[in-house]
Amino acid sequence: MRIHIQNPANDPDFAITPEQAAAAFADEPPHTVTYGVTLADFAAVADGVELLIGSTGTLRSLLPLEAAKLRLVFVNAAGVDGLAPFDWLPDGVTLLNNRGTHAPKAGEYIAMAALMLAAKLPALAAAQRAGQWRPLFTAPLSGRRVTIIGTGDLGSAGARALRALGVAVTGVRSNAAPHPDFAAVAGVGTLDDVLSASDIVVLACPLTPATSGLLNRRRLALLPLGAGVVNLGRGRLLDPDALCDLLDSGHLSGAVLDVFDPEPLPPGHRMWSTANLIVTPHVSCDDPATYNRRSLAILHANLVAWRDGQALPNRVDTARGY
Amino acid sequence: MRIHIQNPANDPDFAITPEQAAAAFADEPPHTVTYGVTLADFAAVADGVELLIGSTGTLRSLLPLEAAKLRLVFVNAAGVDGLAPFDWLPDGVTLLNNRGTHAPKAGEYIAMAALMLAAKLPALAAAQRAGQWRPLFTAPLSGRRVTIIGTGDLGSAGARALRALGVAVTGVRSNAAPHPDFAAVAGVGTLDDVLSASDIVVLACPLTPATSGLLNRRRLALLPLGAGVVNLGRGRLLDPDALCDLLDSGHLSGAVLDVFDPEPLPPGHRMWSTANLIVTPHVSCDDPATYNRRSLAILHANLVAWRDGQALPNRVDTARGY
Repeated sequence: MRIHIQNPANDPDFAITPEQAAAAFADEPPHTVTYGVTLADFAAVADGVELLIGSTGTLRSLLPLEAAKLRLVFVNAAGVDGLAPFDWLPDGVTLLNNRGTHAPKAGEYIAMAALMLAAKLPALAAAQRAGQWRPLFTAPLSGRRVTIIGTGDLGSAGARALRALGVAVTGVRSNAAPHPDFAAVAGVGTLDDVLSASDIVVLACPLTPATSGLLNRRRLALLPLGAGVVNLGRGRLLDPDALCDLLDSGHLSGAVLDVFDPEPLPPGHRMWSTANLIVTPHVSCDDPATYNRRSLAILHANLVAWRDGQALPNRVDTARGY
Repeated sequence: MRIHIQNPANDPDFAITPEQAAAAFADEPPHTVTYGVTLADFAAVADGVELLIGSTGTLRSLLPLEAAKLRLVFVNAAGVDGLAPFDWLPDGVTLLNNRGTHAPKAGEYIAMAALMLAAKLPALAAAQRAGQWRPLFTAPLSGRRVTIIGTGDLGSAGARALRALGVAVTGVRSNAAPHPDFAAVAGVGTLDDVLSASDIVVLACPLTPATSGLLNRRRLALLPLGAGVVNLGRGRLLDPDALCDLLDSGHLSGAVLDVFDPEPLPPGHRMWSTANLIVTPHVSCDDPATYNRRSLAILHANLVAWRDGQALPNRVDTARGY
């Protein structure tokens, strides 16, 4: 297969190296693999490429070019909201993402964030900044009601980590079908009821037209007094001003957020300094030391399925947006 | 049995109520239980008391009084370093502590602290304080080498929580006998070697003459570049200035500390503001909502053993200091 890897220009942590690609495809019949960064790099090989590998930031700009043999596009990311709408994808070309890559770190981030919120660590950190000894005693996380919105790669990894710590986690998904990693599953149609019975709610779903603004002001206010919020999905899943207002009023006890709109979070933005809000800079799910290896192994499994005429586990449903 | 409960004067979160005591001893032959706060309260009943229940802060002052029938003293705490030396304990009287009470919260605190250190959360929090988007990518905790010094109630709870998250934990204890919650156990005589191969080290042991200053400047410097330190034992287990120096130099990447010497940590103390040092105000292991119920259930199990002539599981070895 003729493969072209278009790397981001200034992101050495996540650019795919020839060594990584060679290791991922070692057991296959030889592929012809080319690499590029500029549009001209791709233009030089586009007419023969069958599989194009790129990043969220690069793919859209490449495919005005003719690529008659292209059959597969693999984005080296899981969230594809940055590629929507998908009008740039030629007819008959299948889009694959790398969902599965992020599970180990996502599970740990969700567990860490839930433990921090249960222990009121945001308030303890504020006391430290003030140089004041202000003990706050809390009940363990293991008795809290934790809800994870999104039962995919990220959410199920979080559910497994929390279950291992003795927490019974409710998952929210488009339908209420049971999921082995969750003690209970609710359909998104009953989200209001679930929120009113959640001590900690975690956003771990894709950003799509159906989920944009899902935790709006009305829904955030349904959370019980003292609840906490975690977001490692996308910034636009929640209303940032409503979240900050509820933190300022003390209705919410804390939030741990890894994703924002826009990113980077602009200097001086209210979220940098809102009380009991912990900001992490979109690092919850990525480990450069293993990222491309994990991602390319997932691609490899899809190529085996493709060769064998099987369904592709990482095919993106562009109509649903994930 | 005649029981006297001497409560702390100004600590309503942890004073034992008649309801709590009645619930704990409901299945026993009736006890006569008295309550007090002042020395006079105890003096009024001391000559008949067989079991005295008190706090670290109250017990020493009571027993210059004659208490001829006293056989058992139960301290409503696990660490008894504040009661050493034990010269105040009359001959023939057995001292019991409440070890076991703190496990659920201690396990979660150790897991939270280890996850925070693996994710470089102290540095991310500093970036947030500066209002700066500074991504720091890290490997998951699950591949790190975590060592817990102390394999008792706190340490084993931490090992169970970390094992559930996929971490292989080494325990350090006075001898190298295996422990079911730890992947490996080392005797304290080999501590230097263990430290040099530890990415995260957790202090969860009692403070005794043998452990005071255990993590001194020389031993802290044995930790690898980028290692992290957690302390939920006692402040005097480590050298605070050496710890701060190693954080300032960047040799250590972070520390999460719940215990200090003295407490409260004094205003302006260097530890409040040292880079990458997280201070929590001695709250890691205590949940007032369940503390006395758990503690009195442990006392009850010891009273059953006492009645039956069995060894008392919570007897303090005053020669060892725990």
